[in-house]
Amino acid sequence: MRTQVGIIGAGPAGLLLSHLLHLQGIDSVVLESRSREQIESTIRAGVLEQGTMDLLTETGVGERMKAEGALHHGFELAFEGKRRRIDLTDLTGKAITVYAQHEVIKDLVAARVAAQGALKFEVSDVSLHDIDGTTPTIRYRHQGEAHELQCDFIMGCDGSQGISRNAIPEALRRDYQRVYPFGWFGILVEAPPSSDELIYARHERGFALVSTRSPNVQRMYFQCDPKDTADNWSDDRIWAEMHARVDSDDGHKVVEGKIFQKNIVGMRSFVSTTMQHGRLFLAGDAAHIVPPTGAKGLNLAVSDVRILSDALRAFYKEDRNDLLNSYSETALKRIWRAEHFSYWMTRMMHRLDDASPFEQQLQVAELEHVTTSRSAAISMAENYVGAVPV
Amino acid sequence: MRTQVGIIGAGPAGLLLSHLLHLQGIDSVVLESRSREQIESTIRAGVLEQGTMDLLTETGVGERMKAEGALHHGFELAFEGKRRRIDLTDLTGKAITVYAQHEVIKDLVAARVAAQGALKFEVSDVSLHDIDGTTPTIRYRHQGEAHELQCDFIMGCDGSQGISRNAIPEALRRDYQRVYPFGWFGILVEAPPSSDELIYARHERGFALVSTRSPNVQRMYFQCDPKDTADNWSDDRIWAEMHARVDSDDGHKVVEGKIFQKNIVGMRSFVSTTMQHGRLFLAGDAAHIVPPTGAKGLNLAVSDVRILSDALRAFYKEDRNDLLNSYSETALKRIWRAEHFSYWMTRMMHRLDDASPFEQQLQVAELEHVTTSRSAAISMAENYVGAVPV
Repeated sequence: MRTQVGIIGAGPAGLLLSHLLHLQGIDSVVLESRSREQIESTIRAGVLEQGTMDLLTETGVGERMKAEGALHHGFELAFEGKRRRIDLTDLTGKAITVYAQHEVIKDLVAARVAAQGALKFEVSDVSLHDIDGTTPTIRYRHQGEAHELQCDFIMGCDGSQGISRNAIPEALRRDYQRVYPFGWFGILVEAPPSSDELIYARHERGFALVSTRSPNVQRMYFQCDPKDTADNWSDDRIWAEMHARVDSDDGHKVVEGKIFQKNIVGMRSFVSTTMQHGRLFLAGDAAHIVPPTGAKGLNLAVSDVRILSDALRAFYKEDRNDLLNSYSETALKRIWRAEHFSYWMTRMMHRLDDASPFEQQLQVAELEHVTTSRSAAISMAENYVGAVPV
Repeated sequence: MRTQVGIIGAGPAGLLLSHLLHLQGIDSVVLESRSREQIESTIRAGVLEQGTMDLLTETGVGERMKAEGALHHGFELAFEGKRRRIDLTDLTGKAITVYAQHEVIKDLVAARVAAQGALKFEVSDVSLHDIDGTTPTIRYRHQGEAHELQCDFIMGCDGSQGISRNAIPEALRRDYQRVYPFGWFGILVEAPPSSDELIYARHERGFALVSTRSPNVQRMYFQCDPKDTADNWSDDRIWAEMHARVDSDDGHKVVEGKIFQKNIVGMRSFVSTTMQHGRLFLAGDAAHIVPPTGAKGLNLAVSDVRILSDALRAFYKEDRNDLLNSYSETALKRIWRAEHFSYWMTRMMHRLDDASPFEQQLQVAELEHVTTSRSAAISMAENYVGAVPV
């Protein structure tokens, strides 16, 4: 079998890339190890930057996002008993949409299926070959049979645990990583929203985040020991912690409800360079991870594939190699910006047991600053909505 | 002997406070352990914020600063072989003046002497008494005789090693400190300026700063081990280090010259709270230290005494206690802002041997950001010139 672009992984990066290439008349095949049901039901939070919203809308996959996603024009920072609003639209002219990642995936799968795109689920034994040559191939098993897919290019969109990154020789790669000594305890709650907008809370007991999923289901997180287990936390203990960290002196309280899911996730920052070797290109989590504090993960995947699809269009339509050759450098600029922003926001909001009392006081000074200085607030807001020159 | 305000220390804080009080018709006595010659010849760098420049000018002690200081409308950030200008005046409408701290001291001493202000040098055995009462007293020895000075208020402006801070009971104080694992190696050089403006350089070998003193004398620094000794550094070794860290790809080079002074200073951040107990008030280095990277030390002392002089005017002229009572809280807002900025700039510019390669890469990402994003540049520039709401 032959295609122009072989794509490993049907996450947001792989599916969106396949969709964008299709719109340019470029042929692709997407290979995914999980089932369609699995990828559509793995619940993942999602905050879409303005640029991501615009791209989904312009390419015809933004309808349900617009109807069901929650358009937010700001968020709140809670600290020292206060709540202070960051008015994204006033500060940047832009906004964000809270729309879960698996909903984006559903929309993209539906679009690919409607266009009769080649989308193969539950493939196994995927391996990459001849990525240094002009006809790299992907071998895999599907429905009990061995296949070989010849491509012009292979796109590794298979996440942080995928095989693609390791296909680039270790001697040519440099990885950067920071593992944080804390995790997020996430809960799903049957309750009305506690607030019209997201609340990021910094408290000496630790960080907390109040997000939303729908009018009846809310998503909340609080900083925890990543080695803790969800079973150690009764509902009462969880609510006591959320109230201690988020409730403000003006009487605003987190709204309780039935907790129907609990889980703990670790947090790290990770960047792998280079993102290209021969005819293999990495995009999304395959090349970089951000802690969720800055809400950048999905948006960085979108940014990568936007650059890749432009570069592939230039290759096929204008016979140009330059955009493909500069892909890694171009993408890494925005990646390092987002990595910095996510790290900065993480450090400002979380209890830092490894930091001195001096540095803990600086968190308050910085929060006071971004909520009183208009230029500091603009800079934060531009980063949050993704409107930063890179 | 009696005075309204007893001031311990003839540094910038004590001298300026005495000068400001004099202009309001409030009597003060300044006690200093060193000689006039010593305080006027202890060479200390100085970058004056716009607000500091304005205050000195408005109160009649800014003439020599205006004539001999160097007005700077920007500075340069050097990193990755590039030089990028931060245009302070374009970004904030304000500027800074490079004018050494001991020159400010000379001007203030001259003004106090001309006004026949009580300024006692070479006092010893200073001790504070009855600071909880309404007539605190200062005991000291001067020219071989014991003296007692009765005051309404005592102002501890005697620097980080002075006696004043320790007169506040330890149980009421909370100190915050961060000692950095690096120092600055400072040199004075007979040479023309290397640049019209200050250059702050971030290099993987470490930080360097190119400053200026006069058309013929330049001040330069480079990050070093604080336990190193100046004797270990030949002139050749120093110049090799400065060139490696500062010279840029566009051919710009540090201008060498005869090195006539070398010294190493340690670096720390320090804040002592509260800044007031009974009738004792702390100002300047007696209460807080910043690393020199943000050029905030002198300006914070000025900010403290400006608040104090307003509060004392309100006490004497309007019979109001409220500004004195809120002094510590008011002053600490600006202090924490400056502490945060100095820490931030220090962390962005210095080689951080205690940080991961990931965090070292973030320095470059942050430098790219403050030199390409206008809002990030404005925020940095506002902090640098001292135009931040607090």
